[in-house]
Formats: sequence, C-alpha cells, structure tokens
Amino acid sequence: MILVNGHPTDMVDALDRGLAYGDGVFRTLRTQAGQPLWWRDHYAKLAADCAALMLACPGEAVLHAEICRAAEAGQGVVKIMLTRGTGARGYAPPPAESVTRVVLSAPLPAHAQPGAPRDINARWCDLRLARQPRLAGIKHLNRLENVLARAEWNDPAIFEGLLCDDLGAVIGGVMSNLLIMKNGELFTPDLAECGVAGVARARLLRAAPRLGIPTHIGRLPPAAILAADEVMICNSVIGVRRVARLDDVTWPPAGWTTSLNNALYEDLD
Amino acid sequence: MILVNGHPTDMVDALDRGLAYGDGVFRTLRTQAGQPLWWRDHYAKLAADCAALMLACPGEAVLHAEICRAAEAGQGVVKIMLTRGTGARGYAPPPAESVTRVVLSAPLPAHAQPGAPRDINARWCDLRLARQPRLAGIKHLNRLENVLARAEWNDPAIFEGLLCDDLGAVIGGVMSNLLIMKNGELFTPDLAECGVAGVARARLLRAAPRLGIPTHIGRLPPAAILAADEVMICNSVIGVRRVARLDDVTWPPAGWTTSLNNALYEDLD
Repeated sequence: MILVNGHPTDMVDALDRGLAYGDGVFRTLRTQAGQPLWWRDHYAKLAADCAALMLACPGEAVLHAEICRAAEAGQGVVKIMLTRGTGARGYAPPPAESVTRVVLSAPLPAHAQPGAPRDINARWCDLRLARQPRLAGIKHLNRLENVLARAEWNDPAIFEGLLCDDLGAVIGGVMSNLLIMKNGELFTPDLAECGVAGVARARLLRAAPRLGIPTHIGRLPPAAILAADEVMICNSVIGVRRVARLDDVTWPPAGWTTSLNNALYEDLD
Repeated sequence: MILVNGHPTDMVDALDRGLAYGDGVFRTLRTQAGQPLWWRDHYAKLAADCAALMLACPGEAVLHAEICRAAEAGQGVVKIMLTRGTGARGYAPPPAESVTRVVLSAPLPAHAQPGAPRDINARWCDLRLARQPRLAGIKHLNRLENVLARAEWNDPAIFEGLLCDDLGAVIGGVMSNLLIMKNGELFTPDLAECGVAGVARARLLRAAPRLGIPTHIGRLPPAAILAADEVMICNSVIGVRRVARLDDVTWPPAGWTTSLNNALYEDLD
C-alpha cells in the first residue's frame, strides 16, 4: 500500500521537489504485526534530518498512524519519504512550505527473513564518496552516489559494497553502516563528512557499552578493516551481518555478530 | 502542460527512482513559437548526461515532439526530466530499465523577459560544493546543495549566489555558470570536480573565438573574480547577465555582456 499525504494512491505530483531536486529525506524500517520497529529512534532521526534541511517534520502521531495503516500483516518493510512539497520553479524553498508524506509498504525481502544467512560477502567499490559536511549523516533523497556504486556489480553472491571517501577513509556500505571489532572493542567510521548515520548503528553504539564493549567513532583506513577480528554491516532491515569475505580476504567467525545482533533488538531507552 | 511518457497528466509514479534517489537528469530550456531554442545543444548534453549515469536516453525525435506539444504559445520555458523509471526496492538499477520522461512547460519567468534588466546583484554563498568527479558537470536530479545554497538569502534584490568548492575555487552560480573577462580574455571555472556544465556556457566558449576573444577554462580563486573587468553569469533561460554588484563590490560596465549575449543567440554549428 502507498499513502501520499494520508491518501491511498500510487502517484505523486510531477512538480514535487522530491523529484525535481531530491529535496527531502527518507527512512526504511521494519514492521511487525502492523507496528514499526524502533519507532522512537526512527522518528528522532527523521526529525533531525528534517531539521538539517530546514524541512518541517510532520508530527510523530500522524506518521505513526500512516505507517500502521500501510504496514503489511506479519513482518514487512515500510519506507517513509518526506519532501519539501510542490512549489514554484527554481531552487528557492517555497515561502508557504507544505511537506509531502509518502508512506509505502512492502513484504520483508528474502535477504531480511529470519532464516537468511547471517554471513555475507562484500566488495570494495571504486566510487569515492564526496565529502559534504552539510549533508553528511542525513538520509536524504540525493542518492546518486549509492546508485552508481551499486551499479558496479551484479554478482548476486555479493551482498554489499564498501565505500571510501576521496581521502581514502572507509565510510560504510552502499546500503548499510560498517562496524568492526578489534581486540574486544567496537570501531565504526566517523560520518561527519559523508555517509548516512543509520538507526541500527546508533542503537549498536548505545548497546555495546552494556555488553562491556568500548566503542570508538573515528577515521578507519582500509587496512583497519582488513586487520579487524570481525567485520560487520548493519541497517534497520537486515540487522547485523558478518562480512565473511571482502573481495579475496576471508575471516573466520569471531563470535561478535550474534551477540551484537541480539543486543540490537533489545528494548533500549 | 505536463507530459509524462507522452501522456498529459500532472502525476508521476510514487515508486519512480527520480523521487527515491534523484536517479535522473534534467534540462531547462527556452521555447519560441512552440520550438525549443538551442535544441541540438540541449539534446547532445542530455544524451551525454544520460550516458554518464548509464541511463538510456530517449530518441531525439521523441523528445522534440513532446517539447513542441507541451510548449507555450509565444515565448516560454520547458523543463525535461529523465529518470531511471520505477523499479524494485534498492539502489541496484532495475534489469529491464525503462526511462521516465517528464516534459513540463511554463511561461517565461519575469526575470527572463526581453525587457528584464541585464545587470544583476549577486552574493557569495557560505555553502561549499563537494567535489565528486563522477557527477561533476552533469545536470542530475541530486540538487540539495543548490537548494541549501539558495536558501541562504531571500532578499529579492539578490539575483544569484556564487559558490566555491571545499578547496576555495569558484565554481559558479546556484542556477547559472560564471564567466569573467580580464584583459580582453574570457575565463570560466573548470567543472571537472563539481558544478553543472551548462549549454549557454558551452555556446559562449564556442562563440568567443569568433569574436576574437581567447577562452580559458581553469581554477579561479575568489580574488580572480574580484579583479575581473567584467563578471557575468549565464544559463539557457536568462542568457548572459552582468554582475554589477557582488556583496559590497561593484563594477562599472566594461561592455562585454551585450556582445557575448548577442553571440549566444547566433546560430552556431
């Protein structure tokens, strides 16, 4: 089901600034029995991303009701897009701004089903992410870098591609955040200049200390990934997955992925 | 009038990748008596931009016919958006790609009418453009930087904002390309790492030698703009305009704007 501003439809205005400029933000989240998972985190991130783009975030209750209305029975995925609505021609934000809400549901993809393999294969992408502090961390609708990076491979055995910025720092996956374990400590790339700071990553950074795992956010060169005890990716749909192979490099399991994935699904406040 | 894949409508599919990812390109051009101006240049640029994104560019005749059908009587503006169509969830380009064509017409804006002032006021923007060689020069649908830059001012006396990249090189205007004249020679920023390489700029670079004006494409620091004899902006809708004021700096006319603007409208092959 697709709801646009609360109305069941599969169409949006051709003049929407989401289409014209990618002028908006989005979220993809899991639903269970018609309810969004991790909703408090997702709404907080949506509100923060809207604020960064000076976009008026719809109220929490309005979005929650639309997600529940659109959600599949059982397990599913909901995507929320918020755009700066339609407006006059030109880049200037319209004076009387009215945000467009698109809420669409889909079945849980096969790779996110409970029985899907926890180990995945990854590759390094050639594309280098540009550094733009004004947009870094935000899950906005300008995702051509992700599209171009994902187009670098079509081998179905490769689940994810890892991306560096133009200075060579590892930033994350095309559709996921990256985490590594080294000597019992958790490291994840700093996303102050590019990348998307996802909700699953944020939850893991909150959960790790409760497991006695120190966390570090910083610059990670490719060599740090290769030297890790365990390499993992995460997002709100797939949870935590272990990178078993990265191009020609393989890792045996070091045992962190399952405990971190479990921690991800615990109720955190 | 709006045509989507040739059909009069004002709606597009909510699953279109143009909305989801800004996965597409666009053009804005003038029409006169129902015909696009500079069509050969615009179509060539559209085809090149599509190629850069591995997008299948529709045929020239199809687009030309749709532009003529949509165009206003007299003078007007037509915007063409081409997206990677609708597809499965996820960044991977759909295997059987079908491009969405959106062709929409509008009256010629007041600032582009023949009697509009040739002199404009500009300002420096705070936002710094990120450098991404894979997307540089392309008029793609990922335009959040332009939106954020344009949101820096709402004084209607300011017509355009000038942007630098993160290394401090001047790249161009929010909605225009930048040109300067110095000692009888034309300089315009190199757009290999960011910015949009517009059709008006390309036509001026072709026309200038016929006027005996040497041209240079290179790195221009802000100081080079301030030291120019004449500063100009250009795009396909407004032609060439003289920057009479840039924040607190003013220039008297040096006489180049009119001759370059005239050259822009001459038939060039």
